[in-house]
Amino acid sequence: MTTIQTSAIPRDRDDDYTRAAAEARREFVRERTGARLEHVGSHSFDPPETRGNIEHFTGVAQVPLGLAGPLLVNGEHAGGEFYVPLATSEGTLVASYNRGMKLAREAGGVTVTVLDDAMQRAPAFGFDSAREAREFGRWIDEHLDELREHAEATTSLGRLRNIEQYGASRFRYLRFNFTTGDGAGQNMAGKATAAACAWIREHYDGIRHFQLEANFATDKKHSHVNTLHTRGKRVVAEVTIAPELMERHLNTGTGPVYRARQVSNLGGLLSGVNNNGSHSANAIAALFIATGQDAGNIAESSSAAAYAELRPDGSYYYSITIPSLIVATYGGGTGLPTQRECLELLGCYGEGKVRKLAEIAGATVLCGELSLGAAVVAEEWVDAHDRLGRNRP
Amino acid sequence: MTTIQTSAIPRDRDDDYTRAAAEARREFVRERTGARLEHVGSHSFDPPETRGNIEHFTGVAQVPLGLAGPLLVNGEHAGGEFYVPLATSEGTLVASYNRGMKLAREAGGVTVTVLDDAMQRAPAFGFDSAREAREFGRWIDEHLDELREHAEATTSLGRLRNIEQYGASRFRYLRFNFTTGDGAGQNMAGKATAAACAWIREHYDGIRHFQLEANFATDKKHSHVNTLHTRGKRVVAEVTIAPELMERHLNTGTGPVYRARQVSNLGGLLSGVNNNGSHSANAIAALFIATGQDAGNIAESSSAAAYAELRPDGSYYYSITIPSLIVATYGGGTGLPTQRECLELLGCYGEGKVRKLAEIAGATVLCGELSLGAAVVAEEWVDAHDRLGRNRP
Amino acid sequence: MTTIQTSAIPRDRDDDYTRAAAEARREFVRERTGARLEHVGSHSFDPPETRGNIEHFTGVAQVPLGLAGPLLVNGEHAGGEFYVPLATSEGTLVASYNRGMKLAREAGGVTVTVLDDAMQRAPAFGFDSAREAREFGRWIDEHLDELREHAEATTSLGRLRNIEQYGASRFRYLRFNFTTGDGAGQNMAGKATAAACAWIREHYDGIRHFQLEANFATDKKHSHVNTLHTRGKRVVAEVTIAPELMERHLNTGTGPVYRARQVSNLGGLLSGVNNNGSHSANAIAALFIATGQDAGNIAESSSAAAYAELRPDGSYYYSITIPSLIVATYGGGTGLPTQRECLELLGCYGEGKVRKLAEIAGATVLCGELSLGAAVVAEEWVDAHDRLGRNRP
Amino acid sequence: MTTIQTSAIPRDRDDDYTRAAAEARREFVRERTGARLEHVGSHSFDPPETRGNIEHFTGVAQVPLGLAGPLLVNGEHAGGEFYVPLATSEGTLVASYNRGMKLAREAGGVTVTVLDDAMQRAPAFGFDSAREAREFGRWIDEHLDELREHAEATTSLGRLRNIEQYGASRFRYLRFNFTTGDGAGQNMAGKATAAACAWIREHYDGIRHFQLEANFATDKKHSHVNTLHTRGKRVVAEVTIAPELMERHLNTGTGPVYRARQVSNLGGLLSGVNNNGSHSANAIAALFIATGQDAGNIAESSSAAAYAELRPDGSYYYSITIPSLIVATYGGGTGLPTQRECLELLGCYGEGKVRKLAEIAGATVLCGELSLGAAVVAEEWVDAHDRLGRNRP
Repeated sequence: MTTIQTSAIPRDRDDDYTRAAAEARREFVRERTGARLEHVGSHSFDPPETRGNIEHFTGVAQVPLGLAGPLLVNGEHAGGEFYVPLATSEGTLVASYNRGMKLAREAGGVTVTVLDDAMQRAPAFGFDSAREAREFGRWIDEHLDELREHAEATTSLGRLRNIEQYGASRFRYLRFNFTTGDGAGQNMAGKATAAACAWIREHYDGIRHFQLEANFATDKKHSHVNTLHTRGKRVVAEVTIAPELMERHLNTGTGPVYRARQVSNLGGLLSGVNNNGSHSANAIAALFIATGQDAGNIAESSSAAAYAELRPDGSYYYSITIPSLIVATYGGGTGLPTQRECLELLGCYGEGKVRKLAEIAGATVLCGELSLGAAVVAEEWVDAHDRLGRNRP
Repeated sequence: MTTIQTSAIPRDRDDDYTRAAAEARREFVRERTGARLEHVGSHSFDPPETRGNIEHFTGVAQVPLGLAGPLLVNGEHAGGEFYVPLATSEGTLVASYNRGMKLAREAGGVTVTVLDDAMQRAPAFGFDSAREAREFGRWIDEHLDELREHAEATTSLGRLRNIEQYGASRFRYLRFNFTTGDGAGQNMAGKATAAACAWIREHYDGIRHFQLEANFATDKKHSHVNTLHTRGKRVVAEVTIAPELMERHLNTGTGPVYRARQVSNLGGLLSGVNNNGSHSANAIAALFIATGQDAGNIAESSSAAAYAELRPDGSYYYSITIPSLIVATYGGGTGLPTQRECLELLGCYGEGKVRKLAEIAGATVLCGELSLGAAVVAEEWVDAHDRLGRNRP
Repeated sequence: MTTIQTSAIPRDRDDDYTRAAAEARREFVRERTGARLEHVGSHSFDPPETRGNIEHFTGVAQVPLGLAGPLLVNGEHAGGEFYVPLATSEGTLVASYNRGMKLAREAGGVTVTVLDDAMQRAPAFGFDSAREAREFGRWIDEHLDELREHAEATTSLGRLRNIEQYGASRFRYLRFNFTTGDGAGQNMAGKATAAACAWIREHYDGIRHFQLEANFATDKKHSHVNTLHTRGKRVVAEVTIAPELMERHLNTGTGPVYRARQVSNLGGLLSGVNNNGSHSANAIAALFIATGQDAGNIAESSSAAAYAELRPDGSYYYSITIPSLIVATYGGGTGLPTQRECLELLGCYGEGKVRKLAEIAGATVLCGELSLGAAVVAEEWVDAHDRLGRNRP
Repeated sequence: MTTIQTSAIPRDRDDDYTRAAAEARREFVRERTGARLEHVGSHSFDPPETRGNIEHFTGVAQVPLGLAGPLLVNGEHAGGEFYVPLATSEGTLVASYNRGMKLAREAGGVTVTVLDDAMQRAPAFGFDSAREAREFGRWIDEHLDELREHAEATTSLGRLRNIEQYGASRFRYLRFNFTTGDGAGQNMAGKATAAACAWIREHYDGIRHFQLEANFATDKKHSHVNTLHTRGKRVVAEVTIAPELMERHLNTGTGPVYRARQVSNLGGLLSGVNNNGSHSANAIAALFIATGQDAGNIAESSSAAAYAELRPDGSYYYSITIPSLIVATYGGGTGLPTQRECLELLGCYGEGKVRKLAEIAGATVLCGELSLGAAVVAEEWVDAHDRLGRNRP
């Protein structure tokens, strides 16, 4: 036991969000590991600003940030030109997105639409048998008003939209769908669902098992239920590229790019991808880190469905559907100093801005799809990484 | 066209990695958007250090970093106690992993094993018909030595291990598997495969279509082929928890936790998750940002297979298999100042360390699985987020 | 063209469902191939009975039929003992199901519940962009009453329950869910949906693309949308087996069988099965052929989710959830002479019987899961096939 | 217990494959259920012919059989015209395939290629930890010769091709791949693998768990591992249709059919199908029943990947890849009287014919894809079912 005490990370029980507490931790590991954490200890803000964002605050990871743009967006919430902050350590990423944005802008911009918006928590209830579970499901349908009341009492912004039900074995999985304003809403959805479940458990006999989550909201993971029913925002970005634009900017034709897309679709069908496009996770990760999103949600936000057409006039219609894009402009990491600045750069900080951010994210993703898709066809891909990246060994 | 020029992001063609160039970009967007980017402009290193990691370098995203540990690892490459740097903006994340590490340590530590190691690039070749594609496949098998020679000529560290083949329609998808030393190896694999393909195209007649990638390496996305055949490292972390330890640390019993796992397994089967565990993406994202990994790879690295047993003595065996964990201790973002410090903190900077890092990552993931899995069962989950997170609205 | 005429299969334009027409076809192929089709030409009914079931009627395939049972079912529609007709050519199949039925009967029978019931047709509508597609979706929601009216006007039994919507790219996929009485209902659902779509196309401007089906009803194939939202009947069968019963009947214990189930669950997660159970397709295929179901639907009906528990008293709870079991007791092949007799044997011929048949099917499937699951563990599996099957070469 | 005896299905312990035994069973259920089973009792062959194919032989299901064709096949094993026996109760099925065959014939026939051929059994071995499981895997690789020897000693025809390995948790899943001559080979693969496993268990210490199958061969179910690595035959069928042929035979153009295919591809990606084509299970089920294949294998044989191109000259290239088509021309039900006749009709009975049958199956499937794909676009689909099917209620 003594061993455990001596090796425990130092913690100031009065106030752990101080420069002294952070320095004590850096000193603690410096002694044990030799790592000096000098850069980690260099941050431009005061530790209390991270309260609610981290425990054992010890410093920061500084992630290089570049700008891509202007990105011309034709959205319902985002209209006009944007300069997109991308935080990444992967050479060529910013250059590639920038290239796609230039092309898309000349093509008239990216049209983006948010199709749907929902955040979930999905409790499971167990019963003696499937039959009791089915009866429970009926009761839930009949008591939606009460459930909504108890769920919404825990939140000023969240609204319970509907409850999907999935029956299997002696269980009933309920998938609560909330709208959550400008927050990503996982915690809000969790708290509201817990309140509704407390009420259920008080009023319904025969529940033999309960757990607030059982892999039907699928936070921090890709799932087919999210692909079908949206988690966060469901966003479609679209563009149509004239053949001469494709040639001028991406050094290949719309025909070859389209044919390569078909071969990639077949490949993805067989390999079982959660995304038949090119690399949407790159934009999403870089934008998430820059703007204070929950990076664990890159898991589900990286799912996508690409769809392309080669039109009779030789132009290339390309769209990307992102079914589970989880973004926020309020709460979580959005208020951290650098992250807030990046949101301000996009005009997306604070309330009423989340769909605007979702549209910008969708448009950014699409531009990278154009760029990488063409680079593979034009056989410039490896060269670009050689030139711009750390393609050393 | 003029419009495009005036709105283009400033770039110094002589040397774009200077404080002046970064400031010019900040000024440029400040004028256009009002965003001041003061914190973004605060970094503790010189811009040239980011060459090869970013274009249009403008500053940094400062991501709060906390320490969790000590994490007791029983690996083949990592042995002993580690303090794990986690960069995140999600409150409770560090606390939750820390809690799991405490439990795992008292249980004797986490046993971790790297089962496999491979990085891919997967070109597609098209032919007149499936029959020609099949013949091509035979030819590839017969010329593996030449292909290896040409592929490996482009790299000092990469080794071509084998080439999987997948036939469909008139195409042959070749999946080149490389070992890549301590780098993540995507670029190396790409360059080596391109060289092999150049040789193929010179020596084989009848190729009607070629693209260097067609959704069979599935970089930056989850796929079933990666789950089956590994991308990056295939890591298994295991622990066995005595019932009294579970009760003391996580306020619930091994029986309830085990039963909840079964219900989550069923839920995940139906919902179609790429990960039947709890939230491995959280640890992976936080560790990736802290240590300079490619955050776009959170997409595939977040796939996992949880497997648990309730042993006759009441103890709980839990394992997590991560089939496509992409990590590096060399190249990419690993040399950036804060990221390098974090790798040094783990004793993982530089050559010969990548499996050690993979083991630490696997052990970290497992500890978070224990903690969240139990929190759901003990119904402490929502409370923890209320107490530690920004569960505001 | 002449060549085509002379090799065309003979057809009697006045009445093609006659013994003479069938004989003419047999003679035609006999001349060309030497195959005599004597047994094929032996059928106990008159050709007109197959009108609406086949074209170019030429004879029959005689599939051996065995009985398994008694199967003790505790359903809401099926109660008591049943003798289940299974048409198959696979040795050991009937014996294995029979063995499971014996065990299940001693255990008190199989509890079966039909959780849901729906048949689909899923048209796709295309628009200029995703935004127009989204607007269309709202309009559909607002006009559900009219759609129901036009859909139901085409059928005396079908009822339009609801329309799910899935948006992607510039398309809107509508999934019409019908209840279809005792028919399987694919044709009914198709006709009713076509009528609704005709009305839509008359009343909605801006539709740029229409197709009555686009892989969202997924007839004749497994899909995740069917697993989540049911196609045909969603059936759960459950049983609890005392340890001594398992030992007496299946020569192994509940513990080993349970542990093997866990390993199979993990295997199935990794291999990407559409069914983590053992072999439900065997029962379903044999019962479908015996009772005149559409054998093409074995594709989706063979999907299943197994879930087991080892209870504190050592008993084994096993359940199987079949999310897309497509059965009928009316229409299709159910009225064919041998098939009708088999339905009568189960008390399932005609109207008002389809859920009874679904329950019997679910119970039958479960018994085979018990039997094969235990045979693998008891290492009797290969022996059984050696003894009973045609394990020749 | 007495109850069980009296309700047990009668069985003649001396010889159960007699007309008397079958009649006794029919009489037994007639008394209990009133079902007369007259047609079921009408079969043209003697009961002993079903030995090894069924237990409790009671009669037959007579499934209507129609002929489609001529089907023009350009295979390596099947060349020329074939009349394809299809046993089904679904009206329009034969007509639809016949229509597609007519078109394909005028287009020069269907090119079919068998890409691969393997049958599996996949045992799981458990160890104390993942590390021991990995060591075991190495040992297996080193002892492939001995394993082959012991496996092949059980069979005159089967050959052990290779063993795939999949590691997860403390388990090692081995997937034994056999070539199995003209049999489907499941039983042969099972017996040979069991022999190899017996040898392993004698010679390797530390095995804590063993089961001969754990969802990695995935018999009777669809799986991604089968899609990737073939189960049975991997078959590609291809055709190129001139636009005027499409118009003349299918009343629509190649452009609309191609565009509809794209929308179906997108739909299938989202809905999570195991087959993005139209309805291959229909042909496969009808051909399987006619020719004595194992109808439970319709589950995996119905998986498919469609891929189409609209060529610059307006012609339509269509291909279907069937990754896990399980067929036999020897053993199982292939020797049953009507089934054997159907195989003879195709020139496929007996040894050395299995790839020929696989090619015919692939070509048949393709013709139905053409026909239904076009019927949806030409909006003739519902009408065809109204005219030819039992679209009654």
